[in-house]
Amino acid sequence: MKSLIIDKLYKRVEERGVVCLGLDTAVEYIPEHVLEGKSIEEAIFQYNKEIIDATLDVVSCYKVQIAYYEALGLAGLLAYKRTLEYLREKDAIIISDIKRGDIMATATQYAKGHFSGDFEADFITLSPYMGMDSIEPYMPYMESGNKGVFVLVRTSNPGAEDIENIDTKDGSKVYKVVGDKLTKMGENVKGECGYSAIGGVIGCTHVEEGKEIRERYKDMFFLIPGYGAQGGKAEDVALYLRDGNGGVVNSSRAILLAYKKENKPEEFAACARREAIRMRDEIRTAVNNL
Amino acid sequence: MKSLIIDKLYKRVEERGVVCLGLDTAVEYIPEHVLEGKSIEEAIFQYNKEIIDATLDVVSCYKVQIAYYEALGLAGLLAYKRTLEYLREKDAIIISDIKRGDIMATATQYAKGHFSGDFEADFITLSPYMGMDSIEPYMPYMESGNKGVFVLVRTSNPGAEDIENIDTKDGSKVYKVVGDKLTKMGENVKGECGYSAIGGVIGCTHVEEGKEIRERYKDMFFLIPGYGAQGGKAEDVALYLRDGNGGVVNSSRAILLAYKKENKPEEFAACARREAIRMRDEIRTAVNNL
Repeated sequence: MKSLIIDKLYKRVEERGVVCLGLDTAVEYIPEHVLEGKSIEEAIFQYNKEIIDATLDVVSCYKVQIAYYEALGLAGLLAYKRTLEYLREKDAIIISDIKRGDIMATATQYAKGHFSGDFEADFITLSPYMGMDSIEPYMPYMESGNKGVFVLVRTSNPGAEDIENIDTKDGSKVYKVVGDKLTKMGENVKGECGYSAIGGVIGCTHVEEGKEIRERYKDMFFLIPGYGAQGGKAEDVALYLRDGNGGVVNSSRAILLAYKKENKPEEFAACARREAIRMRDEIRTAVNNL
Repeated sequence: MKSLIIDKLYKRVEERGVVCLGLDTAVEYIPEHVLEGKSIEEAIFQYNKEIIDATLDVVSCYKVQIAYYEALGLAGLLAYKRTLEYLREKDAIIISDIKRGDIMATATQYAKGHFSGDFEADFITLSPYMGMDSIEPYMPYMESGNKGVFVLVRTSNPGAEDIENIDTKDGSKVYKVVGDKLTKMGENVKGECGYSAIGGVIGCTHVEEGKEIRERYKDMFFLIPGYGAQGGKAEDVALYLRDGNGGVVNSSRAILLAYKKENKPEEFAACARREAIRMRDEIRTAVNNL
């Protein structure tokens, strides 16, 4: 059946803009008045809840980076569970940034853990190093129409040169081999919008590459990190989109910590909203100027 | 400083043999009488505890596959935490099989989460797709002498052909690029035994490759999956070792489910012990026959 979830994400981008808000909630990001008198899990949840309430209509989706929650052990994962529950309650689209990648038996367990139960998300991120059989166990969930994945293809960290950008014997690159295989796997799980439920994590690097990647992977929806705190500019990001859709652009710290720039910890959620709107509009303008 | 943890593992292999027992505890592996009247987390913990008590002196270490616990949400992770606590109490060496891999800020969080607190392990497994900067945040823990990692290099699943085994433009292979870089990174975190705290996950494939990989990565300690349920034979495994050390050989299902073969669910722990001893001795014989 057609992918409903990628259509839902596509529509959200049309309606609410391209911003994916990263809930990489480190405890040290949380203002004093929120921390006060609360357990760690309660403080994190309360902080996330206020951010979500303030941004729901101006972002397309939320990316929750599980590492920040795992770092705090069970208390962190309780906050993670509650955050995901709240996002589902609000009908927000959840991308769980977990970057798992393992043999089929193990991937089957990860699929169960992150596509159902306490940690249920709409999309999860995956790592392709072990090959395409490590992606297969997620396919039945995608074929049901309700779930999707974003697989690491080409990231923007310096280390991307080490493996992803290796030139292969037959004139390609490792990340292109990955992208090509994912495109093929995704053919049967497309939405009405034309994009596949198998998306790619495509970091924002340089201009020429952006054009080339967008051209090569026409049916692949992109999760684009690297904007803001990591240095990507709106003009660059625009090249990875198609008519301002076909991808979501993640920002975490720049939105979560917008209150520090304005020096208004009491208004952290309102500051986050202003920064999300600013970012959305900046990218919209860049798209219109292409 | 010298790596204490890799020396401890090396010594354990000398004393207790080469078996790494995989606690990939699926609920359906647990016999009826253990499940009866218990919560999921209690049943999993009790099962693991009995297996650990029965095998502590005949295996070198335990590999706990977190996916099986994540699959059950918070209840599963509570069982995971309790299992790790019990292993630490027994001074057993813990390899947490988590295969994480992310940008530095995120990897720093994973390091905190799995090298301290609720989920503290001695070793964790990592995925190198995003490059060597995704490994760096674990280095300070290794430099302290007390922690180590096993990074995916060459696995034995069919999908290993997709990325790991790609021929590069300059006549190498992707997995060799990874292995070479890890060897270099590991130079300053070696133990007295000569092996580095940066180990590699090296699946047991065919004979020629085993010899080549062992020769190429002299100072790399191997975590070798694929024995038993996944098809690897003792004679093959022996080639990935050096004088019966320099690696540990994982077996999960074949040990955990040994009671099914003997049809003795009441004696699941004793059956696991017998299978661990059988495997240890079989590999020892194969090493002596080389």
